[in-house]
Amino acid sequence: MLSKSQISLVKSLHQKKFRKENNLFFVEGIKAVTEFLNSSFVLYSIYIVPEFVPKLPKLSHKQKVFEVSINELQKISVLQNPQGVLAVFEIPKSIDFDVEKVNDLVIVLDGIQDPGNMGTIIRTADWFGFKNIICSIDTVDVYNPKVVQASMGSLARIRVVYNDLGILLSKNTLPVYGALLDGANIFKTNFLQKGYLIFGNEGNGISEELKPFISKAITIPGGEATESLNVSISAAICCAEIRRNMFK
Amino acid sequence: MLSKSQISLVKSLHQKKFRKENNLFFVEGIKAVTEFLNSSFVLYSIYIVPEFVPKLPKLSHKQKVFEVSINELQKISVLQNPQGVLAVFEIPKSIDFDVEKVNDLVIVLDGIQDPGNMGTIIRTADWFGFKNIICSIDTVDVYNPKVVQASMGSLARIRVVYNDLGILLSKNTLPVYGALLDGANIFKTNFLQKGYLIFGNEGNGISEELKPFISKAITIPGGEATESLNVSISAAICCAEIRRNMFK
Repeated sequence: MLSKSQISLVKSLHQKKFRKENNLFFVEGIKAVTEFLNSSFVLYSIYIVPEFVPKLPKLSHKQKVFEVSINELQKISVLQNPQGVLAVFEIPKSIDFDVEKVNDLVIVLDGIQDPGNMGTIIRTADWFGFKNIICSIDTVDVYNPKVVQASMGSLARIRVVYNDLGILLSKNTLPVYGALLDGANIFKTNFLQKGYLIFGNEGNGISEELKPFISKAITIPGGEATESLNVSISAAICCAEIRRNMFK
Repeated sequence: MLSKSQISLVKSLHQKKFRKENNLFFVEGIKAVTEFLNSSFVLYSIYIVPEFVPKLPKLSHKQKVFEVSINELQKISVLQNPQGVLAVFEIPKSIDFDVEKVNDLVIVLDGIQDPGNMGTIIRTADWFGFKNIICSIDTVDVYNPKVVQASMGSLARIRVVYNDLGILLSKNTLPVYGALLDGANIFKTNFLQKGYLIFGNEGNGISEELKPFISKAITIPGGEATESLNVSISAAICCAEIRRNMFK
């Protein structure tokens, strides 16, 4: 049984303002919830429709577990067809990103707005073993339910931080790759294994503020007739290209 | 000024049933509309907010052009922020797909459900110069407004047909690549330049019915922790890999 205050809390978490205020976000679906339960994220409460959820990892804090009906779940879910479980987790404390300690290619998102793109980039980054994503302050909130949904649990494994990218990159000495329309062919580029890889906003690309920090502009060749690729597609093709030799 | 019957017609085209009945679909946004106007698609009617649309290709059939206000456009648009132009086009007559005439790799979509994925696959296919996409009957309708939107005008250049894939592939003698979880590493695969490349449904992958037709199962390596990639991402990475040598 869901209390009024529980309904009101979870519904408030659909909005960024209240996620920030409560320092909480939520995850839906058995697979994604299981991945978060198996991670270092701290569970706040979990709502389960028993007949929909055959098994979840053992939940030690029984006081956080609530059995609900599918109609009750519908009231707090963002999904058209709720998947039988919704779990609220604490938003982890933001850790400062230390440019001195970068030992891999870090994905940089400069003003990505679409939650589906952001979630898909997280999922793809996880697939190819990237560990860190740094976002400009105006990038969509990573705890937006649609981002969490599209990331399919991968967010439990990827570290996403928000930062003033101008300040951060001004301290950097590693190569900075930037996906632009007039850069070097990525298929002929030898990517170094440490540095940054910037992808820009869906409509406007990489901001003028960040362009001066790019040490190597890169481009996916093709597109004789079409103008551009979706940013989550560009990111995926670049990630695959960078990891290609590892798998070759 | 929009008439009631115009509003009712365009609104009906939000639904597949009425697109089929009227043999019409619509496109929004200056860029996408321009690409369709410059293609072989036949214009039925176009609704323009003059202050939003500085230039479009010359429209010869003045009787098909209607100036409207942004509030009127809002009534027929599927977008939260309509972009100043909406054009209705005829759905072209479906041409039979002739397996004998295949002279490139043909992308095959087996039960793709998400319009965003379908549109993104069309956009990516166009980027890499693929010309043909064949869809199973249960794949989302290519004239769904969200598919058209996500394809960003690329649909004007790509031939998309629907077919009983079992029957079609049973007549085929070319290689059939299928994206599965346990196939050969795509980065070690020498793709032939003629044949078929199948991508399956978002949740269930390639159907059991089609699996027997796969002559070479392929997989994108990675994913130690995560289970799968989004299908539009998988398709993009495969398309890039297939075209890679052309650009290398």
